[in-house]
Amino acid sequence: MATQLEALKERLYDIDALNSAAAIMSWDQQTYMPRGGAAARAEHLGILTRMLHEQFTSDETGKLIESSAKSAEGDDAAMVRRVKRDFDLATKIPSDLVAEKSRLSTLAHEEWVHARANNDFQGFAPTLEKMFEIARQEATYLGYKEHMYDALLDQYEEGATAADVRQMFDTLKGPLSELVKEIAKKPAPDDSALYGKWDEHKQSEFTEMMVKAIGFDMERGRQDTAPHPFCTGWSVGDIRLTTRYKEYLGSAIFGSLHEAGHGMYEQGSPVEWDRSPLRGGISLGVHESQSRLWENIVGRSKAFWTHFLPLLQEKFPEVRSFTIDTFYRAINKVRPSFIRVEADEVTYNLHILIRFEIECAVLTGDLKVADIPQAWNDKYEAYLGIRPKTDSEGCLQDVHWSGAMIGYFPTYSMGNLLSYQIWHALKRDIPDVDDHLTRGDCSPVLDWLQRKIYRMGRKATPKELVLQVTGKPMGAEDYLTGLTDKYREIYGLS
Amino acid sequence: MATQLEALKERLYDIDALNSAAAIMSWDQQTYMPRGGAAARAEHLGILTRMLHEQFTSDETGKLIESSAKSAEGDDAAMVRRVKRDFDLATKIPSDLVAEKSRLSTLAHEEWVHARANNDFQGFAPTLEKMFEIARQEATYLGYKEHMYDALLDQYEEGATAADVRQMFDTLKGPLSELVKEIAKKPAPDDSALYGKWDEHKQSEFTEMMVKAIGFDMERGRQDTAPHPFCTGWSVGDIRLTTRYKEYLGSAIFGSLHEAGHGMYEQGSPVEWDRSPLRGGISLGVHESQSRLWENIVGRSKAFWTHFLPLLQEKFPEVRSFTIDTFYRAINKVRPSFIRVEADEVTYNLHILIRFEIECAVLTGDLKVADIPQAWNDKYEAYLGIRPKTDSEGCLQDVHWSGAMIGYFPTYSMGNLLSYQIWHALKRDIPDVDDHLTRGDCSPVLDWLQRKIYRMGRKATPKELVLQVTGKPMGAEDYLTGLTDKYREIYGLS
Repeated sequence: MATQLEALKERLYDIDALNSAAAIMSWDQQTYMPRGGAAARAEHLGILTRMLHEQFTSDETGKLIESSAKSAEGDDAAMVRRVKRDFDLATKIPSDLVAEKSRLSTLAHEEWVHARANNDFQGFAPTLEKMFEIARQEATYLGYKEHMYDALLDQYEEGATAADVRQMFDTLKGPLSELVKEIAKKPAPDDSALYGKWDEHKQSEFTEMMVKAIGFDMERGRQDTAPHPFCTGWSVGDIRLTTRYKEYLGSAIFGSLHEAGHGMYEQGSPVEWDRSPLRGGISLGVHESQSRLWENIVGRSKAFWTHFLPLLQEKFPEVRSFTIDTFYRAINKVRPSFIRVEADEVTYNLHILIRFEIECAVLTGDLKVADIPQAWNDKYEAYLGIRPKTDSEGCLQDVHWSGAMIGYFPTYSMGNLLSYQIWHALKRDIPDVDDHLTRGDCSPVLDWLQRKIYRMGRKATPKELVLQVTGKPMGAEDYLTGLTDKYREIYGLS
Repeated sequence: MATQLEALKERLYDIDALNSAAAIMSWDQQTYMPRGGAAARAEHLGILTRMLHEQFTSDETGKLIESSAKSAEGDDAAMVRRVKRDFDLATKIPSDLVAEKSRLSTLAHEEWVHARANNDFQGFAPTLEKMFEIARQEATYLGYKEHMYDALLDQYEEGATAADVRQMFDTLKGPLSELVKEIAKKPAPDDSALYGKWDEHKQSEFTEMMVKAIGFDMERGRQDTAPHPFCTGWSVGDIRLTTRYKEYLGSAIFGSLHEAGHGMYEQGSPVEWDRSPLRGGISLGVHESQSRLWENIVGRSKAFWTHFLPLLQEKFPEVRSFTIDTFYRAINKVRPSFIRVEADEVTYNLHILIRFEIECAVLTGDLKVADIPQAWNDKYEAYLGIRPKTDSEGCLQDVHWSGAMIGYFPTYSMGNLLSYQIWHALKRDIPDVDDHLTRGDCSPVLDWLQRKIYRMGRKATPKELVLQVTGKPMGAEDYLTGLTDKYREIYGLS
């Protein structure tokens, strides 16, 4: 049956080529495309997406998967399993609903942009209700045992359930809120010198030097700018990072480290899987663990900046007044804030918890869409001690719901937890990792991640991978210990 | 039968989307792609090209063209005619030969790069013989009345024949050689101040300002850098120019003007044809007439630089010693040279003539591939008075033959002729065009070209268009008069 497997691979090469084309067009759209190109780009991407879906979900693909599944061995067997899951996810939902979701999302995105700009939640509410209804239908088609949410979350994080997420937050909620409150009693670090007008070219030079230094291979990738930073790619030899330049110097620095974390994961797949579904990251949660590990655990550590601060100060004389200690405190400033994407490490998961609770309640009908603002603001007050004054800085801030991406947010928190859990395992193997970082040598970290995670691509499931790498299922323990130790020290808590 | 036409349009939208994807991937390959991306890009582009060819040449497309041809009216009828020609060209050649050509071209390109680098024509000769053999087979499949060359040339310039080209060169050869010789007796203008190390960012700023000033719309396009400048696009709203920065400051300036000439033609198609085969330029010759008109007739005129020289000198103080007169002479320096792409306006067509004569002779078997170097060098001596010392600066210099692009070169000369012929017609309508240019106002030129040429897209054939715009078929008269007047004045010839 080798010919069936070969035929499947050929078919997947076609799909990979279409996927890559769409990814390049999307990258260009967000980096270099002139304004006038938007209308045609939307049409072209729409057609390519349709072709992709048609080819991938065709009966022919299904038959080839069936017939290959019996005979494939080793990596091929893993590849067929992976494709089978993708195929099942893509075919369970009727194409009518896929088309309806795509059509509505385009409209909903524009409405959301308008609503956020005009602080008009109620104008957006009818559309948002439709997006939740689409999610409910999707969940029904996908199927689930306990909670509708399980089906949605599984699309992004294979095998994860609402119960897992609830348990995770139950463990986090108390200690995190406590930590936030204790920190609030202490004087805030002074990070004012990190705000200013920064030369963009110098930011580009510094961040490129930095991501190269941690191990992102610029021969097999590049960094450009985009309004909303992201990482994409279509080959282990061609991974694209983006960053952005803002008043806060840290936006570019930590944004670049974050995306480079995603990027190194993508660059680390075995080259022989380059055009195979085994290339890339296994789930959103695991992917986020890599970006957060480099951004927060390495990139916001004292060891890392012992090496890099003098280089930053050479490039930007405006920050010469920092010592390593004051700089370390400045980049780890904790304060409750309204906007998730600007939140610090300690408060971040509370933002996610709020979204998770609201999504669950709306899906089951326990909360009406019209009542989201009230629930949102009450929860911000309860968990973070602050109350948004407008919906624009409250429940209208995120893009996800306008695209019916419901069940997505918890993967951010899983990434945070996993980053510390993985780091904990790494430190068992490399106890002196800080000494290496202090010398500006990140290679032991990269090598370890490469061996344990990157080279696995999409071969193991997220749960299998976490167990293999850390010796236990995902949990909150290492995260809470790591975070508490770090911030107790920074803020001099008892 | 409106539904058949609609079905044809839908099918062409798909093909347009695949075409656009391939064009974007190719643009990226030549501008931003990291080295590591080359292998995957070649695979992806190969697959997209195959899909494109399969979809376009399918029986289904053929049937839809047939059934639409009877009922389509107005622009639709023109569109169907245009598609029918493209379809016939694409289907006359068997797909085996298309695949063989594609496969051989990839190899031949690498061999050519190697041969040029090592001045090894004989090592490349067997492959070159194969490329000519492919061209002979193509010509046979395409069919022709008089000369094999006609079939090849028609692919690039509909309706043009070898006899047309021969007649064109018969008219040009004497006067051009004579002009070159007369100029050679005069002292050469001093253009040494145009050579140096120039800041790339400043070159980018100046050339972008310049192409915007002549009318290239940066809201619907952009300019980047590439090793070999080109213009591409996939929508009237998204046309991409490239330029390059070299020791000669003119490389960026005239390269940008040239590509902007192509670009404005592409931007000028009616927006309602955006995803239709009627969008874009009608032929290589007409396209080149637009790039050369802006590069040479406008861009190397005294009127144009009366406005732009002070701006150039403001940006580059190194060229402040030029007066408008010495600058005008410097950028119009004529001297026989070996490399076509660096040739001045007067000698340029002699380079093309040499290639045309050699192509014809090799196709018919009158010249053996192994004897090309001898023939090449003899002709350079005869027409330009110089003899290449190596094949690398002789018959190995151009990329075209390694891609079996035989019959392509004459379109460059047609572009030159047409640029003057079109300018002649324009001056009848706008006798005071120089006054506008002197004030830095290129809009009367752009408006005229827009009305006469750009808005026609691919609706009329090249021959129809030239007749419509200039009132006569393509000829050498306006070109020779224009060139002779210009250079007699510059060089003070009697």
